[in-house]
Amino acid sequence: MARFITNNSDHAGRAPGTLIFVGDRKVDQPALEALEFDADTAHVIKEIGVDQMIKVRDSKHISWLDITGLHDTSLIKTAGEVFGLHLLIQEDILNTGQRPKCEEYDNCIFLVLKMLRMDKSTGHINAEQLSLVVGQNYLLSFQEEHEDVFDAVRDRLLRPTTKIRQRKSDYLAYALMDAVVDKYILIIEQFGDKIEQLEQELISSAKPSHLEKIYNYKREINFLRKTVRPVRELVMEYKSAESDLIEERTLSYIKDLEDHIMHATEAIETYQVMLNDQLNLYQSMVNNRLNDILRVLTIFSVVFIPLTFLAGIYGMNFEYLPELKYRYGYPIFWIVLVGITAIMLSYFKRKRWL
Amino acid sequence: MARFITNNSDHAGRAPGTLIFVGDRKVDQPALEALEFDADTAHVIKEIGVDQMIKVRDSKHISWLDITGLHDTSLIKTAGEVFGLHLLIQEDILNTGQRPKCEEYDNCIFLVLKMLRMDKSTGHINAEQLSLVVGQNYLLSFQEEHEDVFDAVRDRLLRPTTKIRQRKSDYLAYALMDAVVDKYILIIEQFGDKIEQLEQELISSAKPSHLEKIYNYKREINFLRKTVRPVRELVMEYKSAESDLIEERTLSYIKDLEDHIMHATEAIETYQVMLNDQLNLYQSMVNNRLNDILRVLTIFSVVFIPLTFLAGIYGMNFEYLPELKYRYGYPIFWIVLVGITAIMLSYFKRKRWL
Amino acid sequence: MARFITNNSDHAGRAPGTLIFVGDRKVDQPALEALEFDADTAHVIKEIGVDQMIKVRDSKHISWLDITGLHDTSLIKTAGEVFGLHLLIQEDILNTGQRPKCEEYDNCIFLVLKMLRMDKSTGHINAEQLSLVVGQNYLLSFQEEHEDVFDAVRDRLLRPTTKIRQRKSDYLAYALMDAVVDKYILIIEQFGDKIEQLEQELISSAKPSHLEKIYNYKREINFLRKTVRPVRELVMEYKSAESDLIEERTLSYIKDLEDHIMHATEAIETYQVMLNDQLNLYQSMVNNRLNDILRVLTIFSVVFIPLTFLAGIYGMNFEYLPELKYRYGYPIFWIVLVGITAIMLSYFKRKRWL
Amino acid sequence: MARFITNNSDHAGRAPGTLIFVGDRKVDQPALEALEFDADTAHVIKEIGVDQMIKVRDSKHISWLDITGLHDTSLIKTAGEVFGLHLLIQEDILNTGQRPKCEEYDNCIFLVLKMLRMDKSTGHINAEQLSLVVGQNYLLSFQEEHEDVFDAVRDRLLRPTTKIRQRKSDYLAYALMDAVVDKYILIIEQFGDKIEQLEQELISSAKPSHLEKIYNYKREINFLRKTVRPVRELVMEYKSAESDLIEERTLSYIKDLEDHIMHATEAIETYQVMLNDQLNLYQSMVNNRLNDILRVLTIFSVVFIPLTFLAGIYGMNFEYLPELKYRYGYPIFWIVLVGITAIMLSYFKRKRWL
Amino acid sequence: MARFITNNSDHAGRAPGTLIFVGDRKVDQPALEALEFDADTAHVIKEIGVDQMIKVRDSKHISWLDITGLHDTSLIKTAGEVFGLHLLIQEDILNTGQRPKCEEYDNCIFLVLKMLRMDKSTGHINAEQLSLVVGQNYLLSFQEEHEDVFDAVRDRLLRPTTKIRQRKSDYLAYALMDAVVDKYILIIEQFGDKIEQLEQELISSAKPSHLEKIYNYKREINFLRKTVRPVRELVMEYKSAESDLIEERTLSYIKDLEDHIMHATEAIETYQVMLNDQLNLYQSMVNNRLNDILRVLTIFSVVFIPLTFLAGIYGMNFEYLPELKYRYGYPIFWIVLVGITAIMLSYFKRKRWL
Repeated sequence: MARFITNNSDHAGRAPGTLIFVGDRKVDQPALEALEFDADTAHVIKEIGVDQMIKVRDSKHISWLDITGLHDTSLIKTAGEVFGLHLLIQEDILNTGQRPKCEEYDNCIFLVLKMLRMDKSTGHINAEQLSLVVGQNYLLSFQEEHEDVFDAVRDRLLRPTTKIRQRKSDYLAYALMDAVVDKYILIIEQFGDKIEQLEQELISSAKPSHLEKIYNYKREINFLRKTVRPVRELVMEYKSAESDLIEERTLSYIKDLEDHIMHATEAIETYQVMLNDQLNLYQSMVNNRLNDILRVLTIFSVVFIPLTFLAGIYGMNFEYLPELKYRYGYPIFWIVLVGITAIMLSYFKRKRWL
Repeated sequence: MARFITNNSDHAGRAPGTLIFVGDRKVDQPALEALEFDADTAHVIKEIGVDQMIKVRDSKHISWLDITGLHDTSLIKTAGEVFGLHLLIQEDILNTGQRPKCEEYDNCIFLVLKMLRMDKSTGHINAEQLSLVVGQNYLLSFQEEHEDVFDAVRDRLLRPTTKIRQRKSDYLAYALMDAVVDKYILIIEQFGDKIEQLEQELISSAKPSHLEKIYNYKREINFLRKTVRPVRELVMEYKSAESDLIEERTLSYIKDLEDHIMHATEAIETYQVMLNDQLNLYQSMVNNRLNDILRVLTIFSVVFIPLTFLAGIYGMNFEYLPELKYRYGYPIFWIVLVGITAIMLSYFKRKRWL
Repeated sequence: MARFITNNSDHAGRAPGTLIFVGDRKVDQPALEALEFDADTAHVIKEIGVDQMIKVRDSKHISWLDITGLHDTSLIKTAGEVFGLHLLIQEDILNTGQRPKCEEYDNCIFLVLKMLRMDKSTGHINAEQLSLVVGQNYLLSFQEEHEDVFDAVRDRLLRPTTKIRQRKSDYLAYALMDAVVDKYILIIEQFGDKIEQLEQELISSAKPSHLEKIYNYKREINFLRKTVRPVRELVMEYKSAESDLIEERTLSYIKDLEDHIMHATEAIETYQVMLNDQLNLYQSMVNNRLNDILRVLTIFSVVFIPLTFLAGIYGMNFEYLPELKYRYGYPIFWIVLVGITAIMLSYFKRKRWL
Repeated sequence: MARFITNNSDHAGRAPGTLIFVGDRKVDQPALEALEFDADTAHVIKEIGVDQMIKVRDSKHISWLDITGLHDTSLIKTAGEVFGLHLLIQEDILNTGQRPKCEEYDNCIFLVLKMLRMDKSTGHINAEQLSLVVGQNYLLSFQEEHEDVFDAVRDRLLRPTTKIRQRKSDYLAYALMDAVVDKYILIIEQFGDKIEQLEQELISSAKPSHLEKIYNYKREINFLRKTVRPVRELVMEYKSAESDLIEERTLSYIKDLEDHIMHATEAIETYQVMLNDQLNLYQSMVNNRLNDILRVLTIFSVVFIPLTFLAGIYGMNFEYLPELKYRYGYPIFWIVLVGITAIMLSYFKRKRWL
Repeated sequence: MARFITNNSDHAGRAPGTLIFVGDRKVDQPALEALEFDADTAHVIKEIGVDQMIKVRDSKHISWLDITGLHDTSLIKTAGEVFGLHLLIQEDILNTGQRPKCEEYDNCIFLVLKMLRMDKSTGHINAEQLSLVVGQNYLLSFQEEHEDVFDAVRDRLLRPTTKIRQRKSDYLAYALMDAVVDKYILIIEQFGDKIEQLEQELISSAKPSHLEKIYNYKREINFLRKTVRPVRELVMEYKSAESDLIEERTLSYIKDLEDHIMHATEAIETYQVMLNDQLNLYQSMVNNRLNDILRVLTIFSVVFIPLTFLAGIYGMNFEYLPELKYRYGYPIFWIVLVGITAIMLSYFKRKRWL
């Protein structure tokens, strides 16, 4: 399946707002978990049905409803109906090939972005879609698979004195996005390490395997860039959302997040430039090496050419070939050979070909 | 005929608004079909003359008049007069080399864009012009040839409870454009599959046929980019049209469409970058391969050069060539040869030329 | 003379507004022609002196005064005084190295652009400067040489019922620019044909003559781009001129013109990209071809190297060279040669070097 | 550690505003120094505890509190509490991987930028983070290590009649940034010298060591660009800060600083272009050189090929090989050889291959 | 000294506004000259001291005070005090490494730009700094060395009826800048001539000396671009200065100047593109040439390889080598050789390798 654009062949021609799951089913069973909190209390609710959703929606506390696993369209539809989500939101949650974006609706702000994970063994970066719906007193999060980046946020929520407990859903959404972006930076940094190390290897000796490495890194960096760049726009739109869901005091945090994502984007661009430079370096190194070999070997052959020719001359069977009769013909022959060789080598030396 | 700009040599110097068909005649006979609908009823009218057009225009229902085949300028002129279309609109409908655009007129919004189709056998992308005129209670669509992307929309219109039945011509125009853009994404995705597969092939072994493939893909991607990019602008202008033809509730759908087209544009750009990278990879792979061959072969030749020279020496006919008389001359000769070969090979090994 | 910037060495240090003709004299004698028209009448005046100019200026009809041939500075000065043109306008008319631009003055709008012509034999594009002064009831046009692109406009003016007869000087100026831009598109299209045809030739077999072709096309496309691109700006400024010389009803025509010029610019850019791709393709094809030749030939030589060596061995004159005495020495020698050749070829085959 | 993005793996998932030192500990012990001044007096305070901080904060004089060494988070926390710094400021001060930025808070303006130093021996550029907090009557500066660029500013502060003594903290912050930017320009200039010198060397003779040099310069210039470019934005934001901390009379100085940083950015970009050009030049020079060698050597070999072939012919042992019996066979043979050589050389000369 | 950024190592750490001369001393003695004029009178004052400066400042006429030679900082300081120039202006006048800019102060507009001169022998472009201070009734100009571009302006000022005599200092500044920009265009044109001529030479035959030429042109064009581009910005800022020093009637002249500088910038960019294309062309031509040589020579060698091998065969000394005894062995041998050669050549011909 094309990795840089998602397969929505099932989608073509369907009515907008049609609920179809587009993507790979990554978990067996969707998992639902709610976390209700305010400054004083916080507790987790595990078994969630329609009733619990309604309770969560109507609660005076702030609630975070986390749904993991998207293939069950009826579940999304139920949630959509309970929380009054626009049909397009429901469709976007189910289509895992969304471009990161921030959209304001009457009753909520809808955010889609990608969580990244690096497959240690292959070095491939995998993206998973995260949809967030920021409502008045609730936050809905939809992920394809359980990601541990949210565990730290969950822990902070359960600890009594943390700042996050005093804030609302807008801050909680910020905190989740911050965790996601921190993961971006971590992955970029790991790539950076590899790329900067590759540079060292290249300078000491360029090998064909490096070519494949450079190319692989380029592809992953392309993927990173395509995933991370639109997030900046998303954060800017979130910051300047007209909705009163975003509290004044959250703004400087969102601005800080914008800064992080900007930092990440710049680092990606710098690594892109570095990879292009490394490709050039690789090719120059390989060329230089071949040039060296060819130069030395060619000179080696060239030195032997007149010698072999002379040996051929005196291997001829002319009846009247006077040099062959000379007493010192053979030693003189060798002296001539050595002389020719010396002249050629000194010529090449003078021309700096050696 | 130049594919990236249309032949309008017949046009040069003519008065603006002159009605001439510019393009290839793709159907024998223009086909007209009208579809009248409101929330309750929907029916198709097949035989359309001037009278039917006037009836459609004056009907209280929403009507979609679809004209397929553009070479009959008188037909376009008739439609233009019935619906009061500006001369420039009529001219643009007939000139199939239009750049995608959105223009607001007093009584309608005029949209031109391209429908794409991929020729499975050659991999070429063909573009066909689609003109839409969004009026108060009617939508006119003009295509060069019948395209099946609209069938799904037509089916939805004929089914009683669909949302599209409750909306007006602005939503219908959106629905058609959505179908067109979904087709774009489908085609980009198919290209993406090919390009990502080519990558695998390249890394395992680069062949000259890959060069032609890369180049063909580049040309098609160029064509895609030129066709798709201006559509984003078109959608943005449609969204922000001042006309009251666009209903408030349609806006979030158009915004969603804008998102799709943006997604498509970014994917195209990513594939362009990938193709450039692949071209580089191809050239590096081919160079590496040739370098390997040349290096090994050159070394092979070089090893034989002194050996052949020595054989030449002892093929000489000097009368006084003492080595030839030695009892063990020949075996010693072989030992020397083997020695020289060993020294050379170990030297090349040490230099890492082998 | 540098083609991409005009020689104004005579100009350096002179007062701004000094009237000097900068360019090549292309006609022997300046030709003046006036065309007076309104919705009812239209007639051509051939012999134009100062009196006629004043009459034209004060006439109630719309007049188009066309001056061909710019080397007579006194003529331009006279016209300038009669129509009250700013000194800078007069200077710009005479300096044929102007950059396309649109400038609003108190009593007129001044437009400079280039008319293009393709020299069929050399494929060179020649540019000629066209200056237009749009006044209340007159249009002045200044060209270096007679261009037939205006003939169609002149014919339309002389025909009674055309739209152009009902309009004012702003529409006439638009009509002239439209003719000029249509010529641009025609030339771009002819180039496009050549470039797309070159692509076919390249893929079937790359020849050194293609290199020169690509480079020539690049230069001409560069020239096209430099000439055409600023025209878009010009048209935009003309459209948004604050002057009341531009009538409301002309605006949609100017917008259409803007679209054409945009289309032209995009086509130019696409062809630039294609030429760069073709250059890469050319080089890859040439390299591939040389690589193929070198590979095959090198392998051919390499196969013979050990054979020749062996022949050398048995050409040696050692007294004790037992193989030479064997009855079947010679046939065995051939068998060995064939064996070595077979082993080498199969090795190369296995390595996919053949 | 990746140089172009900072390791904040400890950070991922933590609450925003968590105080952790991210970076290398560069000094043993944090050093604090305060400098209190107004137009009349100026004195240095060395031993700084919480009490002194409070005194500094509440003093009517302008105070500059300089903290060198950031690993002691409790110290930063204390300072943060005394001066009422937002938690995000404290976090940013401690995270030495910040992107240069300017942020306005209610009570202060927060600036982060990098100080650069060039390691003379390796040519590497090292960056160190400088954080400035501009308050009503104080300036806090946080650096990782003592930098001598500030000494000149300190001296000026201690001299009685300098302008800096008559100004406030906004001007002091400007003066520090000016010193930092002057250092940037100095480093860019030193790089410029090296790059322009490299150009001379390249033109006279390109060596493989130049390749590594070019690549090293490219990497450092990349690093410079990434560090310097965002500073322009920073200065612009500082200039247009809405806070009344920035005095009117300081503005033209900040504008001057903006100019310097712009100058620096443009020089960096010019050197980037030059390095790319040099890389091309290097490769062309190396290719030209190899081409020359290969051409000459190939021609040399080619001249000998028919000669050696002829010698081989007359080394054959056919019983009936008449030329061998001729009295003048051998001299004629030599004449033929010389003739063939002359013909070949003149052919190569005529073809301009020599 | 780095040419693309100026040495201000003496400057680092100094107070802003410190007066130090940065640059090369180009004249022995600073020369001062004042020119007082109004519509009726104009006279030159040669000996200028502080008194004359004050007189000039307080005169009712418009005065142009031209100072050539900047190394005497005290002179600049005196002028600065007399005319009340901001310290930053004085500093910028003395620092010859300024970036072109336009700055508005309370009592004057300050302009810095570069005058260019081409060293005919080396083809190097030299830049010299020109600072202009436009005051109410005076214009100060500061140059490093006497430039003849101003002579024409001075002559016009001394002639009684010229327009420049009726205008104020803003127009005079415009006239000086116009002269400077005309010189830019002259230099660009001379470069253009060289570059377009180089193209012709390249196409007929590419030589290594062309490579150095292309590279030299690239460097000079880089320098031109860096110098000329910011001038556009300068002119735009001058045009839109809020100060009432700029008269309404001067605006269209400044706009014309803006056009010239734009024209110059575009020409520079076109020549940059052309040089890059030429570099590619050069490399392709050189490669093609080498490929041709290598192909022909390789084929030549390859043809001889089997022939030499056969000669080796019949030079062997096997006792039982029957062919050697045949009466027509030798003629048959030659026939075989000719046959092999013919087959090989026709094969290469068929493969289009020849």
